[in-house]
Amino acid sequence: MTSSPVGLHRVLAPAGSLPQAADRLNASPEIGPDEVRLRVERLNLDAASFRQLATKHAGDGAAVRREVLEIVAARGKMQNPVTGSGGMLVGVVDEVGPESTLGLRVGDRVASLVSLSLTPLQITDRLAGWDGRSEQVPATGHAILFGRSIAARLPDDLPTELAMAVLDVCGAPALTERVVRGYGAGATVAVIGGAGKSGSMSLAAARRAGARAVGVVPVEAEAALLREAGLADSVALADARDPVALARAVEQAIGGPADVTVVCVDVPGCEHGAILATAEGGTVIFFSMATSFSAAALGAEGLAADVTMLIGNGYLPGHAELAMDLLRTEPALRRLFERRLAAEAG
Amino acid sequence: MTSSPVGLHRVLAPAGSLPQAADRLNASPEIGPDEVRLRVERLNLDAASFRQLATKHAGDGAAVRREVLEIVAARGKMQNPVTGSGGMLVGVVDEVGPESTLGLRVGDRVASLVSLSLTPLQITDRLAGWDGRSEQVPATGHAILFGRSIAARLPDDLPTELAMAVLDVCGAPALTERVVRGYGAGATVAVIGGAGKSGSMSLAAARRAGARAVGVVPVEAEAALLREAGLADSVALADARDPVALARAVEQAIGGPADVTVVCVDVPGCEHGAILATAEGGTVIFFSMATSFSAAALGAEGLAADVTMLIGNGYLPGHAELAMDLLRTEPALRRLFERRLAAEAG
Repeated sequence: MTSSPVGLHRVLAPAGSLPQAADRLNASPEIGPDEVRLRVERLNLDAASFRQLATKHAGDGAAVRREVLEIVAARGKMQNPVTGSGGMLVGVVDEVGPESTLGLRVGDRVASLVSLSLTPLQITDRLAGWDGRSEQVPATGHAILFGRSIAARLPDDLPTELAMAVLDVCGAPALTERVVRGYGAGATVAVIGGAGKSGSMSLAAARRAGARAVGVVPVEAEAALLREAGLADSVALADARDPVALARAVEQAIGGPADVTVVCVDVPGCEHGAILATAEGGTVIFFSMATSFSAAALGAEGLAADVTMLIGNGYLPGHAELAMDLLRTEPALRRLFERRLAAEAG
Repeated sequence: MTSSPVGLHRVLAPAGSLPQAADRLNASPEIGPDEVRLRVERLNLDAASFRQLATKHAGDGAAVRREVLEIVAARGKMQNPVTGSGGMLVGVVDEVGPESTLGLRVGDRVASLVSLSLTPLQITDRLAGWDGRSEQVPATGHAILFGRSIAARLPDDLPTELAMAVLDVCGAPALTERVVRGYGAGATVAVIGGAGKSGSMSLAAARRAGARAVGVVPVEAEAALLREAGLADSVALADARDPVALARAVEQAIGGPADVTVVCVDVPGCEHGAILATAEGGTVIFFSMATSFSAAALGAEGLAADVTMLIGNGYLPGHAELAMDLLRTEPALRRLFERRLAAEAG
């Protein structure tokens, strides 16, 4: 098998497409020289995907499990055909190709940081250990990492759940840190949605990069949480969908518009407020998947705003290590994450 | 009237929204201290807006005209309520507030570079000179520019049609030039859709900034046009929706992936190809309004691509002057624009 670093050699149909866009992948356990095979322990289905399946089958867990098995068998990957989304997985390294550059060793326990929607996967246990009622899917089988896939070794000193939650958002602090460093020490940063997972990580990264940072949140309960954590130099209350209110809150908190504004709230309509809250020559980083490309482009033009607008890329070299390091060195950040996980567990 | 540089004082409803998002603006001819009033000569309706109106009224020009008049009377601006889009206008400066910083003088003939969707407008001639059958609308009335609006003086040495076509895309060459300069002399640039208006402008700007540039086009006729114009160091044929073909075409043309990839084709599905065609540490600038934010964000993550992805901002200081200067100093660029205008006129 001739290997392509982005997995083109695994695409069965349609010919020439990338693995994410493909209908079917070859999930054969035989690996190419730059590939890695994992023994799967657990899948984490993407929230949108699981919700679609659960709704379709009216909560019938057995039917959900059957459909997941059918999808993986038909497509060679766990990509929900309706939502297009996947999720991530945890597994143990089983075999490493001689030309792999991922730095993994047999026996390493890892999380794959590329989406399940492009990861070759075979399931061998009929998902017998899963009731079809949660996003967490205990599973046996194998998965393939390509030459350029990304996987992070799961640390021994952190619970798997906590490590997974951190890895899920690790692109945000990495890109925030890089952009803030470009503005030099004393840069001002506004993180919209500062009490959330990617938001609190971004705040911690911004301050480590030397910034003075405000965390903006929509309700007093979140403000209290963030104030107690001490991850921001100041905390402001504003509805991010109200451009004038958002810009005013940021200006009052840091004495003017921000050099860097980081959008971490998954609600539509935050583009204009983020632009208005940012100084001329500043940068807006959009991490929210609810961002509208055209609203951002036309909004900046309509406001005659000379701001750089970045599509938040979830990948940067070293992003997982940076995020883990932030969690270890900022006890308040860890407490905030643990609290969120406990709340989600219900 | 207390003036806001972004026009908040002109918003009648809903309170607190920005002019673009507003239902109704106050289009009173009385100007604030930083505002400018224009005597309107012509509106250019946005293509999507005109198409919606023409289709709705089955080509009945009188009905289209009636609806445009109703919209402007009801909203105080020409923003199509279905498409949300506006267009631009040409007019003559009538009055300049003492605190205006736009650099305009009474009598200047200008094009407004902010959208009609946020520009206060009153029509006084019932659009008597328009048959409702084209996007070009001769009109009499007035329009207001805010403190931070953008308008460009129409040059005496260029036909209005040509100048308008250049101004319509002037954000692309300005941002391309800025990004390319950041990579230093000898940077490699790929412009996807290099024979179009924003594409050919971006190619000219990239080469002026010292880059070696390839123009990528989908069909041989466009390739011939671009080769003849000599605006690119090389010309490549590829379907931008085919990631592997696009990346291969760019690599063959410039000997590797591009430092900067500029996306100027208005078709969906070009995100992954643009990312794959770009070098690690490179930048993709998306100017196409067909760009999907999530496809770009998830695509870069799935490809483990450390690329900076920019939302193409249509505004940069000096963008109109730069574009006009490119047109004047590159005869081939001007010929290409004139040819496109002639083809559009049919």
